[in-house]
Amino acid sequence: MNGKKIGILGGGQLGKMLLQEAQTWDLDISILDPDPKASCATMTSNFVVGNFDDYETVYQFGKKQDLITIEIENVNTNALKQLELEGVEVYPQPHIVEIIKNKRTQKIFYQEHSIPTAAFVLIDNKEEIYQHIDFLPAVQKIGIGGYDGKGVQSINTIEEIEKGFTESSLLEKKIDIQKELSVIVSRNRKGEIKCFPIVEMVFHPKHNLVDFLLCPAHIPKDIHDKALEISIKVIEAFQLVGTLAVEMFWTKDGDILVNEVAPRPHNSGHHTLKATLVSQFEQHWRAILNLPLSETTILQQSVLLNLLGSPDKEGDVYYEGMQSVLALEGVYLYLYGKKKTKPFRKMGHCTILGDDLEVIKEKVDFVKKHFIITSH
Amino acid sequence: MNGKKIGILGGGQLGKMLLQEAQTWDLDISILDPDPKASCATMTSNFVVGNFDDYETVYQFGKKQDLITIEIENVNTNALKQLELEGVEVYPQPHIVEIIKNKRTQKIFYQEHSIPTAAFVLIDNKEEIYQHIDFLPAVQKIGIGGYDGKGVQSINTIEEIEKGFTESSLLEKKIDIQKELSVIVSRNRKGEIKCFPIVEMVFHPKHNLVDFLLCPAHIPKDIHDKALEISIKVIEAFQLVGTLAVEMFWTKDGDILVNEVAPRPHNSGHHTLKATLVSQFEQHWRAILNLPLSETTILQQSVLLNLLGSPDKEGDVYYEGMQSVLALEGVYLYLYGKKKTKPFRKMGHCTILGDDLEVIKEKVDFVKKHFIITSH
Repeated sequence: MNGKKIGILGGGQLGKMLLQEAQTWDLDISILDPDPKASCATMTSNFVVGNFDDYETVYQFGKKQDLITIEIENVNTNALKQLELEGVEVYPQPHIVEIIKNKRTQKIFYQEHSIPTAAFVLIDNKEEIYQHIDFLPAVQKIGIGGYDGKGVQSINTIEEIEKGFTESSLLEKKIDIQKELSVIVSRNRKGEIKCFPIVEMVFHPKHNLVDFLLCPAHIPKDIHDKALEISIKVIEAFQLVGTLAVEMFWTKDGDILVNEVAPRPHNSGHHTLKATLVSQFEQHWRAILNLPLSETTILQQSVLLNLLGSPDKEGDVYYEGMQSVLALEGVYLYLYGKKKTKPFRKMGHCTILGDDLEVIKEKVDFVKKHFIITSH
Repeated sequence: MNGKKIGILGGGQLGKMLLQEAQTWDLDISILDPDPKASCATMTSNFVVGNFDDYETVYQFGKKQDLITIEIENVNTNALKQLELEGVEVYPQPHIVEIIKNKRTQKIFYQEHSIPTAAFVLIDNKEEIYQHIDFLPAVQKIGIGGYDGKGVQSINTIEEIEKGFTESSLLEKKIDIQKELSVIVSRNRKGEIKCFPIVEMVFHPKHNLVDFLLCPAHIPKDIHDKALEISIKVIEAFQLVGTLAVEMFWTKDGDILVNEVAPRPHNSGHHTLKATLVSQFEQHWRAILNLPLSETTILQQSVLLNLLGSPDKEGDVYYEGMQSVLALEGVYLYLYGKKKTKPFRKMGHCTILGDDLEVIKEKVDFVKKHFIITSH
């Protein structure tokens, strides 16, 4: 790491947390992001404004680095492949990012590598859905560009096909889900692999939305072991160096199916900044700098709550309720430094530690009620 | 904190760790330091090169802030007092920093507030020591400017008076020390106070030097209680808002005597980044932003080892041994980002967590042997 120049594509919240951990080791980091007001913009004197999806921009930025990593998968992988050919280290490897960033090629990869995943068909346009009515109820996912629920929708009946996406996409058989699980798994250049403890998405009892993320997940031993085994199988199949977030369904039939993966640190691993022996961000640096990976032992049970912009506010961000929230023991606030709030925009997160889950849940409710991300 | 502009005087390692914690809450921080290559220089786009001991520089920097804090006590307190009069919040309060930064006025303060401390006399020059030979063996400390062992020396015999400092200083009766202890104590603007768990300096069995810092300290209950009680008494006597590191002697007679204090986060609190519920840096922000202070519960026993420049090397820093050191479980490296190493310069620290002190000590020896801060 002595004198090694490292570039991160993307300067949002994941870039920010990667950067903070890198500063602890005095790594020499530059950041590329199109938004001059990105989270990382004021956090380093090596912030470059530029589009990470543009070949020339990425190539020119990359030529100044010895090692490149990413905080987002929508990057120009052709430029990264060229940089790799010219001797720049790129982790995760660009050909893997290319497979993953298109949900269609990602699914085909699972199929080819016997990784359990929901049955699917590829479709090139809305009309093709009519050829697969035996597949309904289904979920349609566009290949490229969907994120945070965008580009994904249910098609339950023939009548609903009309609202289908017209883009190149895939149609996936709807799964009867028992729980949604996530495993962050890291692999270094020697091939050493470590999984973080399994995280469970806990849904709100009334609204059908993820309420918070719980670690460790409340699941039976055999499901636990199967989920870890599949996560390791996926990262090995890709031969990925770095961090992979593996999102899985535990079905009512008792199967574990891979839903999708992200080749980078992930929202479902933010609690690791406090709750485990090492954070996903330090582990990522260890993986791509080919340092030994750390154990990921749980120090305390944790809940991770995303902090979203108020539903009815848009504009310059204003935080309310820090006083009362920080009076609670074991509650940690992380604000991403986004200058503008929007309805439901992910503006930060909150980690809550504690032995008693009921006490934690009371704190979750308190934080949701009192910590308000608004605008005047 | 919304929109509040905050300045830190000093951009060394303490400024760096304050800054990293501030970024987590998206605080708007500017840093003033005379060294364009200071640890913080590349960590923010709001780094200002300037001397924090110069009235005009501090005044102009401060006029742009709503709140000012420090990472070093050798700052221009006159400028800070003027800023305070003009409505800028300054914590710790400049009149307290002024008392503390001169060891003579610091000692007088203890005397006036019945805070136990070693007997002393003020001396204006070397010759005056001859009037106090009944005080020998003694320790002479210069009033202003000494740090990290500089400006402090033993004067054991009449013959040794010759080597005495000529500066305005104090002569302190030598204490028969059982252990050296440190308590970090924080106080917010409401007057709420929290102490961090007591830290013990563990000396090397052969060399007469601090080997590492251990938390919690191995001391009897009555000494523990007395040390906390005195720490609270000191911060209350000062009415300080912020962080105070109270360094104490537990004497062989069973007394607790205050050696000296620092009005800021302190080397003896760096393990709090991992070992306690809150770090001294987050607690400092809570104190000066008038947020509720956090509990300081110990999560795990810890040892803090300072990482020093090799004795025989000076020049551009080069780190060796990261591979082997990071293979140990529960070992955390913090490198301060100083570009040049010098013999025994404090270049970073290492926190080692674990239940078994003997295992930790083996890791201490391993890190000392394998992690080398050198130059080519």
